[in-house]
Amino acid sequence: MTGQLVAVCFDASGPLRLAQFWAGLLGREVVHDAGGGTFLPGTDTQLGLRFAESRARRVGKNRVHLHLTSASLADQQQTVARALALGAGHVDVGQRPEEGHVVLADPDGNEFGVLTPR
Amino acid sequence: MTGQLVAVCFDASGPLRLAQFWAGLLGREVVHDAGGGTFLPGTDTQLGLRFAESRARRVGKNRVHLHLTSASLADQQQTVARALALGAGHVDVGQRPEEGHVVLADPDGNEFGVLTPR
Repeated sequence: MTGQLVAVCFDASGPLRLAQFWAGLLGREVVHDAGGGTFLPGTDTQLGLRFAESRARRVGKNRVHLHLTSASLADQQQTVARALALGAGHVDVGQRPEEGHVVLADPDGNEFGVLTPR
Repeated sequence: MTGQLVAVCFDASGPLRLAQFWAGLLGREVVHDAGGGTFLPGTDTQLGLRFAESRARRVGKNRVHLHLTSASLADQQQTVARALALGAGHVDVGQRPEEGHVVLADPDGNEFGVLTPR
């Protein structure tokens, strides 16, 4: 008997706005449950994302962040462009240029990486 | 063309130690790549976990955290017991007892939730 991941949960100042960003980026749908929760449902192959209202002030860099894959360099560029259009920004977390992966922050400042194709 | 999640990445003071915790909890294997990376490979149904060396001091609560599912109350209790045995601890992040889900922190202090069965 082992644990099973079911979701990545984001504390958000505006859960709906943040959910809409991630739904746009990942091509997924925002759903609201009866309890007022906001989430992108998981699928057989993709983990769910949940968005919980939080008034806590953001402090420092997130120690847990998401990585997005890229099938090709063009794919990576498209994903980055889509993220920027949806409200993400570039951030410097000390990444080395030779690593090639692009570090962005979502509209709430949560860092994520769009990885270089392997 | 949309982005695709490939991994959750943890900044860790000790990547191997943290990887071993999560591998034990999720019943998965720790793998090292040629570049010195430490990760739990993703599968068709489970996102990969990556562990990156970081000397950055942890500040405040993580705004992004993992949720683990439970099939039953006994399953939830077993997952919590397993996590505690592996080095997790209980944390108070202001959760309400009636929510029923158990909030723990991994050995690096990263919060995660073991959800109440639905």
